[in-house]
Amino acid sequence: MTSNKWAYSFEDADGSNKDLFGGKGANLATMTALGLPIPPGFTVTTEACLRYFEDGGNLHNDAKGELQEQIAMLENRLDKKFGDAANPLLVSVRSGAKASMPGMMDTILNLGLNDDTAERIAKLTGNRRFALDSYRRFIQTFGDVVLGIDLAEFEGILSKTREAAGARYDHEIPPKALEELIAGYKEVVGRHCEKGLPHDPMEQLYMAVSAVFASWNTPRAQTYRKLNGIPDDLGTAANVQAMVFGNMGDRSGTGVAFSRNPSTGEHKIYGEFLINAQGEDVVAGIRTPQSIDALLELMPEQAKELFNTIERLDEHFKDMQDIEFTVEEGKLYILQTRDGKRTGAAALRIAVESHEQGYFDKEEALMRVDPSSLDQLLHKQVDPTTTAKPVAEGLNASPGAAVGRVVLDPERAIQLAAEGNKLILVRNETTPDDIHGLDASDGVLTAHGGMTSHAAVVARGMGKPCVSGCSELTVDEETGTVTFKGYEGVLKEGDYLTIDGTTGKVYIGELALVDPQIGDYFAKFLGWADEVKRLGVRTNADNPVDTRRAYEFGAEGIGLCRTEHMFMEQERLPHVRAMILAETEEERREHLAKIKEFQRADFEGIYREMHGYPVTIRLLDPPLHEFLPHDEEEIEEVIRSVKSDVTEDEVGRLKARVLSLHESNPMLGFRGCRLGLIYPEINEMQVEAILEAAITVRREGEKVDPEIMIPLSGAKAELAIIEEKLRPVAEAVFKRMGERIEYKFGTMIEVPRAALTADEIAEVAEFFSFGTNDLTQMTLGISRDDAEEKFLRQYVDMGIYAANPFAQLDQVGVGRLVAMAVELGRKTRPDLKIGICGEHGGDPPSIDFCHRHAFDYVSCSPFRVPIARLAAAHSAIREKRGE
Amino acid sequence: MTSNKWAYSFEDADGSNKDLFGGKGANLATMTALGLPIPPGFTVTTEACLRYFEDGGNLHNDAKGELQEQIAMLENRLDKKFGDAANPLLVSVRSGAKASMPGMMDTILNLGLNDDTAERIAKLTGNRRFALDSYRRFIQTFGDVVLGIDLAEFEGILSKTREAAGARYDHEIPPKALEELIAGYKEVVGRHCEKGLPHDPMEQLYMAVSAVFASWNTPRAQTYRKLNGIPDDLGTAANVQAMVFGNMGDRSGTGVAFSRNPSTGEHKIYGEFLINAQGEDVVAGIRTPQSIDALLELMPEQAKELFNTIERLDEHFKDMQDIEFTVEEGKLYILQTRDGKRTGAAALRIAVESHEQGYFDKEEALMRVDPSSLDQLLHKQVDPTTTAKPVAEGLNASPGAAVGRVVLDPERAIQLAAEGNKLILVRNETTPDDIHGLDASDGVLTAHGGMTSHAAVVARGMGKPCVSGCSELTVDEETGTVTFKGYEGVLKEGDYLTIDGTTGKVYIGELALVDPQIGDYFAKFLGWADEVKRLGVRTNADNPVDTRRAYEFGAEGIGLCRTEHMFMEQERLPHVRAMILAETEEERREHLAKIKEFQRADFEGIYREMHGYPVTIRLLDPPLHEFLPHDEEEIEEVIRSVKSDVTEDEVGRLKARVLSLHESNPMLGFRGCRLGLIYPEINEMQVEAILEAAITVRREGEKVDPEIMIPLSGAKAELAIIEEKLRPVAEAVFKRMGERIEYKFGTMIEVPRAALTADEIAEVAEFFSFGTNDLTQMTLGISRDDAEEKFLRQYVDMGIYAANPFAQLDQVGVGRLVAMAVELGRKTRPDLKIGICGEHGGDPPSIDFCHRHAFDYVSCSPFRVPIARLAAAHSAIREKRGE
Repeated sequence: MTSNKWAYSFEDADGSNKDLFGGKGANLATMTALGLPIPPGFTVTTEACLRYFEDGGNLHNDAKGELQEQIAMLENRLDKKFGDAANPLLVSVRSGAKASMPGMMDTILNLGLNDDTAERIAKLTGNRRFALDSYRRFIQTFGDVVLGIDLAEFEGILSKTREAAGARYDHEIPPKALEELIAGYKEVVGRHCEKGLPHDPMEQLYMAVSAVFASWNTPRAQTYRKLNGIPDDLGTAANVQAMVFGNMGDRSGTGVAFSRNPSTGEHKIYGEFLINAQGEDVVAGIRTPQSIDALLELMPEQAKELFNTIERLDEHFKDMQDIEFTVEEGKLYILQTRDGKRTGAAALRIAVESHEQGYFDKEEALMRVDPSSLDQLLHKQVDPTTTAKPVAEGLNASPGAAVGRVVLDPERAIQLAAEGNKLILVRNETTPDDIHGLDASDGVLTAHGGMTSHAAVVARGMGKPCVSGCSELTVDEETGTVTFKGYEGVLKEGDYLTIDGTTGKVYIGELALVDPQIGDYFAKFLGWADEVKRLGVRTNADNPVDTRRAYEFGAEGIGLCRTEHMFMEQERLPHVRAMILAETEEERREHLAKIKEFQRADFEGIYREMHGYPVTIRLLDPPLHEFLPHDEEEIEEVIRSVKSDVTEDEVGRLKARVLSLHESNPMLGFRGCRLGLIYPEINEMQVEAILEAAITVRREGEKVDPEIMIPLSGAKAELAIIEEKLRPVAEAVFKRMGERIEYKFGTMIEVPRAALTADEIAEVAEFFSFGTNDLTQMTLGISRDDAEEKFLRQYVDMGIYAANPFAQLDQVGVGRLVAMAVELGRKTRPDLKIGICGEHGGDPPSIDFCHRHAFDYVSCSPFRVPIARLAAAHSAIREKRGE
Repeated sequence: MTSNKWAYSFEDADGSNKDLFGGKGANLATMTALGLPIPPGFTVTTEACLRYFEDGGNLHNDAKGELQEQIAMLENRLDKKFGDAANPLLVSVRSGAKASMPGMMDTILNLGLNDDTAERIAKLTGNRRFALDSYRRFIQTFGDVVLGIDLAEFEGILSKTREAAGARYDHEIPPKALEELIAGYKEVVGRHCEKGLPHDPMEQLYMAVSAVFASWNTPRAQTYRKLNGIPDDLGTAANVQAMVFGNMGDRSGTGVAFSRNPSTGEHKIYGEFLINAQGEDVVAGIRTPQSIDALLELMPEQAKELFNTIERLDEHFKDMQDIEFTVEEGKLYILQTRDGKRTGAAALRIAVESHEQGYFDKEEALMRVDPSSLDQLLHKQVDPTTTAKPVAEGLNASPGAAVGRVVLDPERAIQLAAEGNKLILVRNETTPDDIHGLDASDGVLTAHGGMTSHAAVVARGMGKPCVSGCSELTVDEETGTVTFKGYEGVLKEGDYLTIDGTTGKVYIGELALVDPQIGDYFAKFLGWADEVKRLGVRTNADNPVDTRRAYEFGAEGIGLCRTEHMFMEQERLPHVRAMILAETEEERREHLAKIKEFQRADFEGIYREMHGYPVTIRLLDPPLHEFLPHDEEEIEEVIRSVKSDVTEDEVGRLKARVLSLHESNPMLGFRGCRLGLIYPEINEMQVEAILEAAITVRREGEKVDPEIMIPLSGAKAELAIIEEKLRPVAEAVFKRMGERIEYKFGTMIEVPRAALTADEIAEVAEFFSFGTNDLTQMTLGISRDDAEEKFLRQYVDMGIYAANPFAQLDQVGVGRLVAMAVELGRKTRPDLKIGICGEHGGDPPSIDFCHRHAFDYVSCSPFRVPIARLAAAHSAIREKRGE
C-alpha cells in the first residue's frame, strides 16, 4: 500500500492502522474519534519515513508541504500561530513505531519556542522561570537529538550556572541566570551548526520530524530489531501535537490517573495531580501531588469529565489505562493513554473482573495475564513502601524475599535452624554438599554463579529466595566474615540480612515483608486456565512436603521424582557410602536393603500426597563420587566410619578405589543408567521400594500410578537390558505381596543419541521425559556450571543465543532435536507419553514449544506450577486463534 | 525353495548353493566336481535342519532314511562297513552354516567307533595306542557335544589316569591305561544316559547330525546372529565324510600346505608333513614335521599329485589356499581347503601377483586385502621367530615394536633422548603434559587407559608403538621402579624393555626387530587404490616431520593441523603462559606477537612439505588451563617466572585467576571458538601467521592452499562474529605484504548443535570438518577419558555398542547426526567441502560411512593414510558393485 498523503490529522487518521500511523499515532486517532478531549495534532506516516530513507535522508517536499498544511489547520483551530508573538503555537514531536523500541528518539516538547515566543509564554503563564526553563530544555533536546550535539556540552554550562547561582537543583536557578544559560546554549548550538538554532518554527519542525525518522536507523535500534525479528522496512511515524499548559494559573493543573488500582487491581480510579503545574514538576518532586479524589472538590466539572473519560478509555481498550491529563485554564485535555503497568496480583484481578464485567471472554482474560507475573503472588515480598537502601544487588535467581541471620557453614545452618533461627545461607558458591544447609535456611545469597547455578536451581526447586552472582559480596570463610563492596560494616554469623530474590536486592538488617497474595481470584483464574489448556502440568518433587505444595498449586502428577536427594539425607548417607564401598555384590545388597526401607517410606509419603496422579520416579542418577568426600583425609575418615575392623591395607585399597571414581568430565561420566547396568542391584532395590510402596498405599484406599524412569539412556540396548532385569523383580514383588499393580517403564531423553535414535528407544520405553538440562548441555557442548560466568552471559549479550539456553529452551538447536525425537518416538509407539522435566518445564516460551509439539505434559518446580498452567492455557488459546 | 531330498553326496551337491549346503558342504562339492581326491561323503541340508526344528527337535524319518542310503553308498564305494569288525567305515561329522559362526558344534571325528571297531582299527593301523586314544576322544567329544555331559567329568578321570601312569602328556599314557580310561568314560556316559554310548554307528550318526542341528540354536550362536544381523531361519548343514588315516604305515602320512608363502606372499608351495601320522600328532608337537619339499623325494608320485592339486585349487579359488592332506597307503586325499591366513605383506603381494597372473582385475585385487592389515607393513615388528616370552600383555594401542631404556619422567626423557638413548616411556597413564616426553621416546607403555586413552591417541598420531592398559604393570614414581605381576625382577630407569604395540606384548630386555616391509608391491597396489577411490585422503599433522611422512604415504593434504601442540613447545610455553596471565589486551597482544613468530615458521614448514595440497589449520582449541600447572605452588612459580617485579598481592590475584580457570567439565567448557570470541586477539594472531606464512612460501615458488578452521562452533552467530573480525585482519596482511592469497573459512562440526543447525552454519562456513571424537563424546554423553575403564568396555561386551564408538563411528546414533548435517549443509551450500578429522578418519568402516555420505575427504594420522586410501578404494568398488 502506498499513498500520496504523508500526514494525517488525528481526526483523519485510522486508529486501526498501526502499520501506517505507528502505535502512538493510532491511539491518538482512536481517542480523537472517541470524541475525547485530545490536544489536536497530526501524524506523519511511516511511509513518509521510508520515503525519507529512499531520498537519502531528506524530507520530501510534498511532505513538507503537508506539514505546513497541517500546521495551518492547527493554527486555525486553536487560534494560535507558529512563531506568533501574541499567541504562539507550540507542539510536541514524538516518534511512534508500530512497536515501541529502545534507541529511538523519544520526545521534543515545546517546539515552536524561540526568543520571541518564549517571552510571550512567560507573560501568558505569568511564570517567567517556567518559560525560560522550557526554552532552555527545548534547545538542549533539540541540540542533542536533532543536531547531534554531545549533551555534556550543555550540561557543563548548566552546572556552572547552578554553581554561580548557588543553586542545588535546576529549579532553583533564577530567571536572570536562565537567560544567561540560554545565551550559552545558543552559543554551543552556533558552534556546531552554522545557521544556529532555527528561529523559524516550521524549520524546527522539518528538522525534528527528520530526526525522528533518522532515529529508526540508530545502531541500537537496528540491533534491537535484529534480535527481535522486527523487519527493517516498517519505519516509524512521527506525531506532532499541540502543547497545552497546566501551569496557566489556578484553573490549570496536570496529573496522572489509572482506571484501576495498579497494585491491587481494584476497579477504582487511582492517581494524583498538581494544580498550576507541568509534568516536570511532578518528576522534580518539589511539590507533593494530591490524590485524584481531591480533584472532585477543586475542579468538580473537570474531574467529572476526567473520570468519565477514564472509564470510557478503560471500556474502549478493555484494559486498565494509565492516563496523563492536563487542565489548561479550565479545559481538560487527555495527553496520553496507555495500558498501565501493574503487579501480578492486579493483573489477575483486573483480568477476572474485566471478564465478569463483560469486556471479553475467559480466554481473553487468560491472555491478559503474563504467566511469569504470577511468581509475585506466590512468594513473600519486601514491603514495597520500604525506604531501606539495598547494600548490594545480584541476580534475581529465585523469587521471593527472606529475612534471616547470616550463616556461612551448611552444617552450622542445620544446627542453628534446629534452635529455631531464621537463616540466610551466605556462600561464595554452593555445591551439592550444601543441600542440607540450604534446606535449613530461609534463603541463600552467593557471590558467584548465575541464574542457573547450583544454588539458583536448588533454591527454585525448593521455592526459597536466592540472590546469586552478587559480585559486591565477599565471604571469608576462614575469618567467618561477610563484607560488601562500598559498605563499611562487617557481618558475622548471627547478623541479620534481608534478600529479595524477585529483584536481586540485598539489605542489611530485618526488613518488613508482605505475605503472598493468593486469593479467590487466583483459584478462579487458574481454574479457567485448566479448562482450556491441553498440556498436563506436573511437578518435580522429591518429598511429601513439596508434593503437597505442588498438588495445592494444581500439579497433576510428578514428572520427576529424583531419588538421589533421598540418598543424601544424613541418616542414610552412611549406608549409601557403605554400599558404594562394598567389595562384593552381597555386601552391597546388605546396605541396599537398609536404604530400601527409607526409600519405601519416602515413596509412600509422596504417593499419598499425589492422590492418584502419576508419579514418575527416576532411578539413581548422579555419579557415585557425589556421595563421597573428595579430600583424601575425609575419605579415610569415611572408610573407617562405615567399615569396622578395617586394616591399613584395606583403607589404602578402598581409598584408591574412591579416588578412582573421580572423573575429568563427570557430566559425561559413570552415572545414570550406566550405574544400573554395572550394578543392577541398585536398580533392583529401587524398583522393589517403588512397587512395594505403591501397593502399600493402594491398600490404604488411595489410587497410585507409578512410572519408573531410567536416566541418561543413549541406546535401546541399555533399556532392553535393564527392563529384562527389572520385570522379574517386579513380578517377585507382586508375588510376595499377593497383588499386582500397573506401572510404566520409560526413560529420560537427555543424551542427544537417545533423541536421535528415539524410534529404537521407543520400542522399549513406554514414555519419554525430556531432561532438557542435560540435553542442552550435551547438545550445545556447554557445561552449565562452568559457562555462565566464563562466556555464556557474553554470548547472550552478543546475541549468539537469544536467551540463556538453560533458562529458555534453545528451540533452534535443542528444539530441533526434541522435535525429531517426538516424531521418531511416536512413529514407533503412537501412544508414547511425552513430557519434559528440565528447568525449561516452568518457562512459558519453552512450555509453548512443548504444546506445539504435542507433549502430554510439562513438569516444573512446585512454585512454577501455576505459571505453567497459565502458559499452557495461553498456548492452547494461541493455537485456537491460529497465532 | 523346498525339496524332498535331505542329503546329497558331494558329487550330487551344488558347490554354488551355500544356502542349501552351507559353506563347508559347498566347498566339498566344488572340490569333488573338480575331480580332486576328496574322501567321499555327503551333506545333510540346511532344510533338514529347519525341518528338525519344525518337528520340535526331532530328525525326520525321511532324513534318517536318506542318511541310511548315503551311508550304504559310502560303504559300497569304499568297501567298508559301518560297525563292521573286518573293515569298519568311520566318518567325521561337521557343522557347516552359510557363514562360520562361533558357538556351534564343530567336529566329531571317528564316528563309527565302538568296542569292536576300535579293536579292528588297532589291528589295521598296527597302532593300538592310536586306536584307543581315538576311541576315548570320540567318546569324550560325543559325550560333550551330543549328550551334553560336562567335559570336566571326563577330564577328571583323564588327569587321574595320567597321574597313575606317571605320564606328563596324554600321548604318554600306555594302551593298558587307555583301556581303563575308556571304561571310566563309558561309566560317565552311562550315568547320564540310560542307554549308554550307542553301539550302533547309525544311531551315533542320527544323534550327531541332530546335535549339529541343535547347535544352531545355542545361546551363543543366537547372540552372535543377533549382533551380526544373520537371520535365524538360515539353519546349518551337516557334513558327513569318510575318515582316512595317515598312520597306516610308511606309505601313509599327513600334512598341511599353502599354495603361497603366508608370510611373504611368494608364489611357491609352502608347508610341512609327517610320515605315518595323524593330524593330532602335528598339534601334539612330539615329532618335528618335515618341509613339504621333502615329500618330493619320499613320495614323488603323491607329491606331484598334491602339488598339482594345490595349484589347481589356487587357480580355482583365485586365492592362496590352506590345505590339509592325508596319504592313506599311497593314496592322496585332500581333507580340506580354505583361504589361508596371511600377513599384511603377503596379502598385498598375493593380490598384486594374482592380478598380474590374470586371476582377477585390479579392483578385485584391491578387495582381497584388508585395509587394516597394511598397518603391519608400516611399522617395525618383533622378529616373528623370537622365542622370548612376554612378561606382560596390554592393549595393542598403537602398532609397531620398539626397544628402549625405561624412563619414567617425561622431562628426563627429553634429557636422555638428547644423550642419544632409545627410550620407552613407562607411566601409570599419560596426560597432555607428557607430550614432549612421549615425543622424545620410541614407545610408550601405560598401566591404565584403553585403546583411546591419551597415550594411545597421541602415540598413534605420532606413529609410535604404544601398549596401554597393561594391568600387570605397576609404576612407583616415588621409588622410580617398574614391576610386573608374576615377574620377580624390578626395573629402573635405564633398563631395557621391548614393547610390541601390534600385539600388546611386553618383553624384558632388547629383542631383535624386523624393519617395515614397504616395497614396490606397496606403491603399485596403493596406486591402484588411488585410481578407483573417490574420497580424498588427508592427514592430521602438526609439524613438518609428520607432514612429510604423511605426504610420502600418499596424503593429499592436511585435514587437521592443531595449533595447540605448537603452543606447548618448551621455548614457547612461557610466552603462552604470559599471554594467558596478561591483564590487559595490550599486554596479551605483546606476548601473542612473540608466539606468532614461532607459529609462522611452523606453518611455513608445513606448507612446504604439503606441496600445494590444502592445509586446514584449526585455531586454538583447548581450554587455557591446559597450558598451566594445576598445583598451587607450581602456579605461583609460573607467575613469578613470567611476570617480573610482581608483588605479593598481584601473585595472589593472578593465582586466583588461574584457579578460576578450572572447570568441572572442561570438555564442555571455555574452549574452542569460545576463546576466540572472548579474546579475539588470539585468533587474529593466528590468522596473520597462517596467511603471512602462506604468502612467504608461495614466493618460494610453491603452491599453497590454506584453510582456516574454527573449532567447537555451535551456532551460526559464533562463526559470523568471528568471520567479521577476521576478514579485515586478512585484508590487512594482504595490504602489508602487497599480495593476496586465496583461503577458505570453515568450521569443525563437533558440537551436536552445529550438526543440527548445519543449514545455518553453512551460510557462513565454506567447509565442514567433522570432529567425530568430540561429536561422539557429546552425542553419546560419554567422556572418552573416563569411560573406557569404568563402563565402556563392559558396554561393548554387553553388545550395547557394536564396537568402541571412539574407534569406530557409531553409525546408528552419531552417524544419523552426521548424515543430517551433510544434507542440511549441502542444501544451503551445494559445493560445501566436507571432511572428517576425528580418529574415525582412519577406521575402514567409518571411512565407508564417509564415502556413502559423499564426503570430500577423510583425514587421519600419517600412518593410517595407506589404510584409508585402500579403505576408500574398497568403498568405491563396493558402490560400483552395488553392494
